[in-house]
Amino acid sequence: MERTWTTELGPLCGRRVLLKGWLHRLRRLSSVSFLLLRDGRGVAQVVVHDPALARWVAGLAHESVLEVEGTAVAEPQAPGGVEVRDPRVRVVAAAAAAPPVELLRPLPRAQLPTLLDHAAVTLRHPRRRACFRLAAAAVRGFRDVLRSRGFIEIQTPKIVAAAPEGGANVFAVDYFGRRAHLAQSPQLYKQAMVGVFERVFEVGPAFRAEPHDTPRHLNEYVSLDAEMGFVRDHGTVMDLLRDVLAGMAEAAGEERDSLELLGVAAPEVPGRVPSLHFTEARSMVATALSEDLDRELDLAPAHESWLGDWALREHGSELLFVTGYPMARRPFYTHPDPRATEWSNSFDLLFRGRELVTGGQRLHRYEDYVAALAARGLDPEPFHGYLEAFRYGMPPHGGFGMGLARWVAGLVGAANIREVVLFPRDVARLTP
Amino acid sequence: MERTWTTELGPLCGRRVLLKGWLHRLRRLSSVSFLLLRDGRGVAQVVVHDPALARWVAGLAHESVLEVEGTAVAEPQAPGGVEVRDPRVRVVAAAAAAPPVELLRPLPRAQLPTLLDHAAVTLRHPRRRACFRLAAAAVRGFRDVLRSRGFIEIQTPKIVAAAPEGGANVFAVDYFGRRAHLAQSPQLYKQAMVGVFERVFEVGPAFRAEPHDTPRHLNEYVSLDAEMGFVRDHGTVMDLLRDVLAGMAEAAGEERDSLELLGVAAPEVPGRVPSLHFTEARSMVATALSEDLDRELDLAPAHESWLGDWALREHGSELLFVTGYPMARRPFYTHPDPRATEWSNSFDLLFRGRELVTGGQRLHRYEDYVAALAARGLDPEPFHGYLEAFRYGMPPHGGFGMGLARWVAGLVGAANIREVVLFPRDVARLTP
Repeated sequence: MERTWTTELGPLCGRRVLLKGWLHRLRRLSSVSFLLLRDGRGVAQVVVHDPALARWVAGLAHESVLEVEGTAVAEPQAPGGVEVRDPRVRVVAAAAAAPPVELLRPLPRAQLPTLLDHAAVTLRHPRRRACFRLAAAAVRGFRDVLRSRGFIEIQTPKIVAAAPEGGANVFAVDYFGRRAHLAQSPQLYKQAMVGVFERVFEVGPAFRAEPHDTPRHLNEYVSLDAEMGFVRDHGTVMDLLRDVLAGMAEAAGEERDSLELLGVAAPEVPGRVPSLHFTEARSMVATALSEDLDRELDLAPAHESWLGDWALREHGSELLFVTGYPMARRPFYTHPDPRATEWSNSFDLLFRGRELVTGGQRLHRYEDYVAALAARGLDPEPFHGYLEAFRYGMPPHGGFGMGLARWVAGLVGAANIREVVLFPRDVARLTP
Repeated sequence: MERTWTTELGPLCGRRVLLKGWLHRLRRLSSVSFLLLRDGRGVAQVVVHDPALARWVAGLAHESVLEVEGTAVAEPQAPGGVEVRDPRVRVVAAAAAAPPVELLRPLPRAQLPTLLDHAAVTLRHPRRRACFRLAAAAVRGFRDVLRSRGFIEIQTPKIVAAAPEGGANVFAVDYFGRRAHLAQSPQLYKQAMVGVFERVFEVGPAFRAEPHDTPRHLNEYVSLDAEMGFVRDHGTVMDLLRDVLAGMAEAAGEERDSLELLGVAAPEVPGRVPSLHFTEARSMVATALSEDLDRELDLAPAHESWLGDWALREHGSELLFVTGYPMARRPFYTHPDPRATEWSNSFDLLFRGRELVTGGQRLHRYEDYVAALAARGLDPEPFHGYLEAFRYGMPPHGGFGMGLARWVAGLVGAANIREVVLFPRDVARLTP
């Protein structure tokens, strides 16, 4: 008999079906027991009237792998409106013991460190795994929009010699006796590829050796990167990003079961995302919070949070662009605002009051790179191979990078980004 | 005026168009000059009758970025059947000098090391970049088939503590003073995720610190990985792989311009890929090549090459499965053949006589892992977190891993895998 997924029982009422999955829960009542069988997609209710069978199933550890053959019957009370009756149950693989965290409760009853220590098992919890369906949907939406605009997917190396985001926070790798390190971003590679395809994107890991331990940062993360040529300025990139986010929100909306389970809705992306210049944003925050920020060159998390509330209140938008950050705080490849060169043609995008995306226009002239590296006291030698791309003809271009987990965390309202990463890496956590 | 791509001139004949791109070539004849403008998608021919304009363009270095406004006119001799006449030309960004390798020739006239040293520029060559359109198509085909079968895309960490493929060839990373290393594959993670989603796939980098320098190996490569639960044995995985490859070949077929430029065809994937057991394959090779292979536990490249020829000759197939490799040469997670436990439920897939994919059924019982690690003298401690997945109920499962570049190399007939990787990493090459 062909295997039926628990989510596909609806059209099969009245027929014998074969389910495969995990013993998620057994509820024993006086005259009947309910076996909840979880497979890779959902959970089905199996009704056990036979007391001997119920006793036998009760002797199995939760998470044992079972095959259940039974009759699909419409039952409005059951999950999905169908239950399975008159079951025959076979053990495929018995669990050795009860799992380290009970997976049968609607909310896992364990602290985050315990959930993460036992991730290989606790990710099976329906609420935990729903986050990763949303992550997969986000990546799908990201790619689909970019592909529809003629962007080409690339993969660039993660063992590198140069550190475009600054040399302080890189992980060192012993590369056959030479010092190499792990890529902080695909920045210079994606820019070089603008000379090849004009429009490129990459989904890949990025590594930052920052020793801080916050709910917003990890030392390895999945970065969604895009870069395009022939931009007017950073505004062209912001227009693209708006459409990309709309596609990601739409893809999230298609994951109805996961959204419902988590009790969240896909975000709405306005046709025009509100935007503030850094100086405006800073001064609004300074007034509202009675702080003296005149010499501040960045926004603190509390400031971003206030701005997020402001955008929602004033514009009904969960998204807000802040543009023109001071050149002094942006990486060397950042393009200045030609009208006021202490500010930049760059932006951050806040999602529900937290930084989600950083992007902007990049320098495109070789001599500007030479000058920018010199002005920051950076040795041009490690950048030699990339700077060739600018020496031999490069149009005005720009792009953005987005942490996948930040999007998912915003979407599901996770207080800690570790909740939405399968196997997170931080200063204290290298396993599992 | 809206920008028109060089590949989209066809429907615009008779109209003024605005092209943007790179000065690919200028051919000056006595009465007319032809400016070839390359953009991210193709090349257009621009006819220059004005001698002053031709002289001016001749003074620009190749690869300068230009905007060309002109009239699209049907011309059967021109690339794409359309040329652009009566042009006005504007320089967007001048190249500082002629590029280090001429990009205007149909075949780049440089040795591979030179092409790779200057990859940030030489990837612009139409033949070079065509390989990477085919790579993007391959990844698209891989994902599309798996998604249509309910596989979920995941991203697993690349900084890890355990070495499932053996500890000898790992890159060490200093992780905040602890010894970590770079993942050789997502093997144990994707297996653990079978317990969560049953079906998962990943596209990501993999790292092997092997110091050998061959045309087939790199130290960092893009791995296409899939894993699924509830398999019968490795045959279920082989059936899936056949369909995945058919989807990848179909996606390649959609890149008509790239295939044509490279003079290659998308491979044909037979409905049923021929298959030999390792012992059969070994004995056929031994007879054909008059070698004594009775004690050989693996196939050498020359043997795989002979088998590839055999499959083409006898079955008209460019693909060949070799199954049942000796357990002694497979990693500890390999499932033995239950009928003859010195052999394994594993396979390699040869594409045009070279190994493309490795896969098989995995162990799924916790106690089998404990025994397998002990039998190989491996310390179980680093594997603790992953083995939990097997302790708490795991069905029979299997999967495969494929090097993206090997597929593309086979497709375009590249003698050296470095030809089809944007910025390859080998024992001698860490930049660009």
